[in-house]
Amino acid sequence: MNMKKFLLVLLLFPIIASAQDYSTDSAFIKSISNNVLGNRTAAYNNLYYLTKKIGGRLSGSPQMVLAEHWGFGAMKAAGADSVFTQQCMVPHWVRGGKDRASVSYIDSKGKQQSMPVEILALGNSVGTGAAGVKAQVIRVHNFDELEQHKNELKGKVVFYDVPFADTLINTFEAYGKYVIYRAIGASRAAKYGALAVMVRSMTNSMDNHPHTGALHYLDSIKQIPAAAVGLVDVGRMDSLIDAGKTLTAQIFTYGKMLPDTIGHNIIGEIKGSEHPEQIITVGGHLDSWDVNEGASDDGTGVVQTIEVLRAFKSLGFRPKHTIRFVLFMNEENGTRGAKKYAELAKANNEQEVFGLESDAGGFTPRGFDVTTSTGGFERLNAWLPLFEPYGVTSFGKGGGGADVDPLHTTFGTDVGELRPDSQRYFDLHHAANDVFENVNIREMKLGAINMAALLYLIDKYGL
Amino acid sequence: MNMKKFLLVLLLFPIIASAQDYSTDSAFIKSISNNVLGNRTAAYNNLYYLTKKIGGRLSGSPQMVLAEHWGFGAMKAAGADSVFTQQCMVPHWVRGGKDRASVSYIDSKGKQQSMPVEILALGNSVGTGAAGVKAQVIRVHNFDELEQHKNELKGKVVFYDVPFADTLINTFEAYGKYVIYRAIGASRAAKYGALAVMVRSMTNSMDNHPHTGALHYLDSIKQIPAAAVGLVDVGRMDSLIDAGKTLTAQIFTYGKMLPDTIGHNIIGEIKGSEHPEQIITVGGHLDSWDVNEGASDDGTGVVQTIEVLRAFKSLGFRPKHTIRFVLFMNEENGTRGAKKYAELAKANNEQEVFGLESDAGGFTPRGFDVTTSTGGFERLNAWLPLFEPYGVTSFGKGGGGADVDPLHTTFGTDVGELRPDSQRYFDLHHAANDVFENVNIREMKLGAINMAALLYLIDKYGL
Repeated sequence: MNMKKFLLVLLLFPIIASAQDYSTDSAFIKSISNNVLGNRTAAYNNLYYLTKKIGGRLSGSPQMVLAEHWGFGAMKAAGADSVFTQQCMVPHWVRGGKDRASVSYIDSKGKQQSMPVEILALGNSVGTGAAGVKAQVIRVHNFDELEQHKNELKGKVVFYDVPFADTLINTFEAYGKYVIYRAIGASRAAKYGALAVMVRSMTNSMDNHPHTGALHYLDSIKQIPAAAVGLVDVGRMDSLIDAGKTLTAQIFTYGKMLPDTIGHNIIGEIKGSEHPEQIITVGGHLDSWDVNEGASDDGTGVVQTIEVLRAFKSLGFRPKHTIRFVLFMNEENGTRGAKKYAELAKANNEQEVFGLESDAGGFTPRGFDVTTSTGGFERLNAWLPLFEPYGVTSFGKGGGGADVDPLHTTFGTDVGELRPDSQRYFDLHHAANDVFENVNIREMKLGAINMAALLYLIDKYGL
Repeated sequence: MNMKKFLLVLLLFPIIASAQDYSTDSAFIKSISNNVLGNRTAAYNNLYYLTKKIGGRLSGSPQMVLAEHWGFGAMKAAGADSVFTQQCMVPHWVRGGKDRASVSYIDSKGKQQSMPVEILALGNSVGTGAAGVKAQVIRVHNFDELEQHKNELKGKVVFYDVPFADTLINTFEAYGKYVIYRAIGASRAAKYGALAVMVRSMTNSMDNHPHTGALHYLDSIKQIPAAAVGLVDVGRMDSLIDAGKTLTAQIFTYGKMLPDTIGHNIIGEIKGSEHPEQIITVGGHLDSWDVNEGASDDGTGVVQTIEVLRAFKSLGFRPKHTIRFVLFMNEENGTRGAKKYAELAKANNEQEVFGLESDAGGFTPRGFDVTTSTGGFERLNAWLPLFEPYGVTSFGKGGGGADVDPLHTTFGTDVGELRPDSQRYFDLHHAANDVFENVNIREMKLGAINMAALLYLIDKYGL
């Protein structure tokens, strides 16, 4: 602990600070840290099994079912007082085949040239089928350019070439700004008669892995195929277009939406000793995309959630409030599990105290982002010295995440999310390289330690 | 910038703060950040060439010479006002062959069993030669145990099985505590007649890569072979020993110390506009171990040093003081380059203002550790809000590093080092997996941005 800062905080928040027993808290958090970092098997084996033995687990897939069964057993093994499931209907999109594409053009000698382009169909998208789509490429850098070219788009392939602002330090800012092109770019182009869209992958990476992710078709507009393109191939296409070439793309995708099917939230619980009816929720999402192992998205959030449970039970910690450790289903393309969780909480007249989520990768923790009242922030900042030894150095305003936001919307519950370092996340987000090997186990554990610390403090003092 | 914290700092250090023009500084640092993050080729290509085209570059090796030539050209390409070299004599240790080992034991059926063990000879160690060493293994967990067993060590192989305290958050703490077993364990065991030592690798990793590093033979004690063992094999050996088996190790290493040879520090300079005779030094080390690409140790420090130079020149920044960008030779097994640098500075009656080093990996930056007067820390902490947007959230007391410490020792110069997040460093430190692929380019660049910011501020305001 940085004693100078600690004293400073004491100075600024004398009432809160003096009312709290920081030395006990500091010692308990240290015992959590020792328990988690000192255990070389639990978290490691959980992540290994989920990623290497089960792998990608898109909603509706056989792997989703395997993951649900695994999660149930893992919660029991971690020592939950009880484990239960919540059924929900989930969308069932299948990729349906191997996505592939090429672009061709006439070179300076008048000869036709062609090059393969690495693509991945976007989640929820319709496929081209075996016939494929073959058409001229129109490149646009934003929706304004799309509108300028609207009369030229009929029968064409629109290529959304939107750079992923490298100069933004927080990579989620870039994602937040540009993900709309992946989300609704297809419908915006289809409105003007485009046959398909290619979208520059949402990544800072230097490799050629395409990054998939959910697409959302706008109502009453024709649904057209859509695929993400790897950055190296984007560079090649740019070079050709910049040199004045007219590109023709040929695209084969096979995506298909099957009828909704059954999925489950998996929930482990520690019963509250004083207020069992008041519930603190913590979780990550169990589903992932189909093209990788779903390691950082969100295997790490899942494993951290289970690890907090395991450490609490291992240390004999008895929370005042009931703590629910939730593996949410279907975050990636529907958030049906999260909606069901809030819906059932409302139906059961539950009291929701706080919701915490980890879904930004298992990277070294930097902070938490929290949606709460001003009073909450005074308290959080007073706690900061307790977190600093473990890497969390700030609480940001405004945070939650797709899986706990419905609690906030439904009940006004305060919600928050772990904020890991963001530099590596979009190198592997929704891409083939989101695998076990790209997770650092200690960094993931540090996240779990900070999550446990926050839950412990909120359980003890409220927010 | 976190405005609340910024105002707090203003409140605490009114005199310093009011004397400084933070908005100009903040804007300049932002321009550095945009320049570095916006350039997708310079730092990437430098690291790629150094690691993939040159690779491991131990002092005295042909790759060392290639790296020196490359470094000279890279400094010129980055726009240095002048580039020069400093010659120094460096130790010339060669591995001499493929290290290998096995352990054998009698199983419960009375049958001899054998298993290979992944080893790497320690740097500077003598080899077993083709005859190898074959002897019973005596395991000890610390020097106290060694002393307890001193009468049993004659003719044996001592196995230093010292766990790398997983529960320490800062991995360098564990390293600082236990590296002595790698450094002088061989001599301590040889004193009692041991034939060779095996040392548990200094790592938190879950893989089996042995981690080499410098050994130092104590005077007048017989020099015996010494090798690091991978952690998975350490676990296997432990299981057997814990089960009561007597292990016999067979070890083959071929290390040899050749006569000292010639190496060079490579130095690029920007001449000071007001105090050209006053020198600020920044650097990393150009040499590395032979078993990997020397990517995080210390390719990233080298590339960051060159990147700061490139960004400064690219932005037309004219420092008041002369800034020297130094690629130090022979940090790994002698620090002869660093010693030569300080020695020449003294011989030339130079004025040394500050020395900054990056040699803890190109991981996301967390802070700087600095050795300076109390006044220096007040100033540094007043600057903190300028760094926070780029990831540096604290200045720690006491820091420098092997390459800038001789400046402190010789002149009393204030010195400091970049403190990146430490979780991943000892997964790859001195091991075969310290390669280009395990560096995240954005994290490395963030380090360079913070280094540039600190140099800019020290040049402008002093420390």
